[in-house]
Amino acid sequence: MAFRKVSIIGVGTTPYGVLEGQSLKGMAIKACKEVMLDSHVNKELIQAFYLGNYIGGMVIGQETLAPLIASSLGLNKTIPSTRVEGACSSASIAFMQGYWMVAAGVYDMVLVAGVEKMTTATREKLTASLVASIDTETEGRTGLTFPGFWALLAQRHMYEYGTTMEQISMVTVKNHQNGSKNPRARFRNIITLEDVMESRLICDPLRIFHCCPNSDGASAAILCPSHMAKEFTDKAIEVAGIAQTTGYPTLSEMGQEVALPATVSASKQAFEMAGLKPSDIDVVELHDCFSPAEIVDSEDLGFFEKGKGGNALLEGITQVDGKLPINPSGGLMCKGHPVGATGLGQVYEVVMQLRGEHENQVRGAEIGLTHNAGGTGSVCCVTILRRWL
Amino acid sequence: MAFRKVSIIGVGTTPYGVLEGQSLKGMAIKACKEVMLDSHVNKELIQAFYLGNYIGGMVIGQETLAPLIASSLGLNKTIPSTRVEGACSSASIAFMQGYWMVAAGVYDMVLVAGVEKMTTATREKLTASLVASIDTETEGRTGLTFPGFWALLAQRHMYEYGTTMEQISMVTVKNHQNGSKNPRARFRNIITLEDVMESRLICDPLRIFHCCPNSDGASAAILCPSHMAKEFTDKAIEVAGIAQTTGYPTLSEMGQEVALPATVSASKQAFEMAGLKPSDIDVVELHDCFSPAEIVDSEDLGFFEKGKGGNALLEGITQVDGKLPINPSGGLMCKGHPVGATGLGQVYEVVMQLRGEHENQVRGAEIGLTHNAGGTGSVCCVTILRRWL
Repeated sequence: MAFRKVSIIGVGTTPYGVLEGQSLKGMAIKACKEVMLDSHVNKELIQAFYLGNYIGGMVIGQETLAPLIASSLGLNKTIPSTRVEGACSSASIAFMQGYWMVAAGVYDMVLVAGVEKMTTATREKLTASLVASIDTETEGRTGLTFPGFWALLAQRHMYEYGTTMEQISMVTVKNHQNGSKNPRARFRNIITLEDVMESRLICDPLRIFHCCPNSDGASAAILCPSHMAKEFTDKAIEVAGIAQTTGYPTLSEMGQEVALPATVSASKQAFEMAGLKPSDIDVVELHDCFSPAEIVDSEDLGFFEKGKGGNALLEGITQVDGKLPINPSGGLMCKGHPVGATGLGQVYEVVMQLRGEHENQVRGAEIGLTHNAGGTGSVCCVTILRRWL
Repeated sequence: MAFRKVSIIGVGTTPYGVLEGQSLKGMAIKACKEVMLDSHVNKELIQAFYLGNYIGGMVIGQETLAPLIASSLGLNKTIPSTRVEGACSSASIAFMQGYWMVAAGVYDMVLVAGVEKMTTATREKLTASLVASIDTETEGRTGLTFPGFWALLAQRHMYEYGTTMEQISMVTVKNHQNGSKNPRARFRNIITLEDVMESRLICDPLRIFHCCPNSDGASAAILCPSHMAKEFTDKAIEVAGIAQTTGYPTLSEMGQEVALPATVSASKQAFEMAGLKPSDIDVVELHDCFSPAEIVDSEDLGFFEKGKGGNALLEGITQVDGKLPINPSGGLMCKGHPVGATGLGQVYEVVMQLRGEHENQVRGAEIGLTHNAGGTGSVCCVTILRRWL
């Protein structure tokens, strides 16, 4: 069957960070109202609502958030409101569902959002909630956490390819330079290589500045068929490629290669769908939950050969004025990582880049990519977005 | 756009009940393996996986179940695995997503499943997890629980329409008669009106036998375009109508009518899509989480005029040999209610009826309906299924 082209006609977001006094529901409503303003879409026009949320239940004791937020927004009662969950990929999964429903002609106008509230939780509760995306019947029992997971991958990447802690730490330095210009970022301070390498050890070799901060936040977008987009905006961004794949829920299944196989397959599918190749991409927002992840992801996405991501970074290729700017928003590292919102936060940043409206603008950016990985890479979503109006 | 007809080519389920020693993951795998056998579909053919689960996180500490189960099943890694959540409607939402993806031609073969593990949790944990689908910022704070919610609706239904406790209790008596014949049901004992009316008071006027039991269980189905169904089975059941709507997340918003508005709108949409009316339905599995719910739901679905559901029951219309058999499986009341699985458990029962293979067979059943309501009716899913091969 032939599918319709789909465009993003608006985006909305809260800043990410410690949003005191803002509830899970309140933040989601804020982002959704902003996207309706941005897209000039009246709530009556929305035909379906998808919401990504990871741990509203475990952290706040609130499940079934999609109809709750739909009702608060005053959306039509005759439409479906659906929550989707795939750990850190939850918001991208909402985007994926919305995309296909519009592409396939089921709906003409879909609101997608993601939200997470984390900073009110105790450290114990938060740790238990985050490891809930690891298989609790197997590796979860060993005490493995995500800093542990990425520490192991970092160690192996260094062993296999000679990647250095200097390279890994430069991810943090670069992303802080970028984040300092982004009003939505939680950390807006410039830090030095020494600051990173001398910061508190968390899980060898990872230090505190190699770990992104848990945060609160919500982000949203509205999707419609591209042929309808002009009625609403002159700044529509088309979805050129999109994919969601399944990876390994445990480290032990992943084999020897230091890669997330779900990233490799999702990016391959998305590039093929878009008819594009990695060198066509002007700007990337990828899942740097820990500094080594940016290096591993940049290789898995096909931008650099396996083992060469660290060098590419040192050469300045991924700087905002480099050949392939990565995370000009500051990434998860500086924006913060409200788990269920992050995927649409990345879409927000790339849409702003492609509109030419970003505070840390990549000059002439026309094609962008987002990469959002969940759990131990057990879910991965990649989207390729393109300016066309 | 024109959509394809979609058929259910197989179903699978665990029994519902206290499934000692069976994990969340284990039960889901069991139901999914059964559906692959039943449909003669090899796992390599599955192109997408949707899983309904409500409180795996809050009760077991396990989130991100879809990729976890997909991996254990050995599904292809290049396909998306997506968890959806909408309280007690979670499995029906998985079915709805699968339906549209096949109807719209995005995928040809979709596995949908639902699972819940409840009986290992403490009563406190379970209560906290169940009320997590009530708005915790408003009515959740008043201490309202679901027995309380349905007690209030029952009181009002009796006040407005003269419904009696005898009528409400007869729902339980009828469903136990039905459940006694269903090997998948948790309760298989016949009970009397006195047993019900003299059982322990839970929340006035509801007694323990007016409340369905928390249970463990998993159910699954495989969907494909109807034109492909014959390659796999000669017992395909077509989805004639389907709808998912949004209701009120709080009682205070619902107004005076003793109804779940989301049920009314979902059934209206599903009947319209199917080109059928309530009198065309031969068998119904509806959401009798509490006995009064069966009466309210049977009215909201359009089978009886508002206020007449109780009388219809006493007249025997909803018995297995009546004009409109309701819950010949025993319903949630006797099967048990593993929240995230129930919607597909209903589909399982109706499919067996339409195949003519049910242990409590409705004679000549050709068209069946499932109704699955979540939370305070904040989500509702209705499907109309039809024998065609």
